Amino acid sequence: MHPALLKFLSTFDTLDKAEVEAIAMHIPYEEFPKGTVLQAPGQVPNRCYFVLEGLVRQYFVIEGNEKTTAFFTESQGSCPANHFVDRSPSAYYLVCAEDCLLIYGDHNIDQANFERFPVLKEIVSQMVEAELNQTRDEFSKFITSSSEQRYLHFLKTRPDLQNRVPQHQVASLLGLTPESLSRLRKRLVTKG
Amino acid sequence: MHPALLKFLSTFDTLDKAEVEAIAMHIPYEEFPKGTVLQAPGQVPNRCYFVLEGLVRQYFVIEGNEKTTAFFTESQGSCPANHFVDRSPSAYYLVCAEDCLLIYGDHNIDQANFERFPVLKEIVSQMVEAELNQTRDEFSKFITSSSEQRYLHFLKTRPDLQNRVPQHQVASLLGLTPESLSRLRKRLVTKG
Repeated sequence: MHPALLKFLSTFDTLDKAEVEAIAMHIPYEEFPKGTVLQAPGQVPNRCYFVLEGLVRQYFVIEGNEKTTAFFTESQGSCPANHFVDRSPSAYYLVCAEDCLLIYGDHNIDQANFERFPVLKEIVSQMVEAELNQTRDEFSKFITSSSEQRYLHFLKTRPDLQNRVPQHQVASLLGLTPESLSRLRKRLVTKG
Repeated sequence: MHPALLKFLSTFDTLDKAEVEAIAMHIPYEEFPKGTVLQAPGQVPNRCYFVLEGLVRQYFVIEGNEKTTAFFTESQGSCPANHFVDRSPSAYYLVCAEDCLLIYGDHNIDQANFERFPVLKEIVSQMVEAELNQTRDEFSKFITSSSEQRYLHFLKTRPDLQNRVPQHQVASLLGLTPESLSRLRKRLVTKG
């Protein structure tokens, strides 16, 4: 049992110490070195990942250019399970941007664990619901924000990403060109 | 039992006719006239809605201006349950943009129904997961698209909204000013 897994499971109030240890014995995890491609366009993903340690980047390749659309970290938690349900091919890459420790699941593993530990199913349901709420909130905020507001929101809500990801990927995440982000940063420095 | 509710429940392969009728008896629904405010900023929502018929609009008021960020229709399904989990106040309005027939739920109603019909909990879990996947996909697409691509995607994926919502709300949904959308539409007409 990995200490990071025990630590993560201990954050759930609904689990007592014995349950945490019992569940941890049945949850598979793996270390992946930086650069590992977890998912690629055209493949039907059969695994879903959850970040215990490290950083996973989601990106599309559009007209030959990488477009970063999400970062999943240990502080944020879950990786996209897109297409895990409907068995459609992925449209994007998921790569380890750092050395990672990831929980993984698939349909059979998950079902077996949910039968063993009904409380786990409840926890996962609540996590997915919270994730949906958060994603919708972030999407609404993105739609209604200016470039500057988006960048300030990013600095405030993703402090875990500062100094861990290159600025051109941040620009992409905010729907900006690297040049626009660079100008925006200069403007903010002058203002401040 | 409303025919629209029976019809909706009948779309789930995992339910047989007897289950559909039994479940329908326990799911509360209500008609709301156009203009009804279902949720307002500052209120802690205690209900979650699901559209059987009609159209629900989500919008923020930012510096005195309405910013539309989502439309929920009978073809799309679910309304945001934001803040339903963490009991935080809503940041936005949910209003009936047409006369609506809505399923509603709250923590007690849902729990009672999940205990009565465990299959219903499974269905709801899968819907929430599919909704999360779809929202993430739409968000990624929004980040990586130009204004024109966003508008074409909107036309293609939301045919149910054409002629039902004013253009300035569509502009807002796409993160554009009404003037930019108007220019874009003219360009497309000239192109076509």
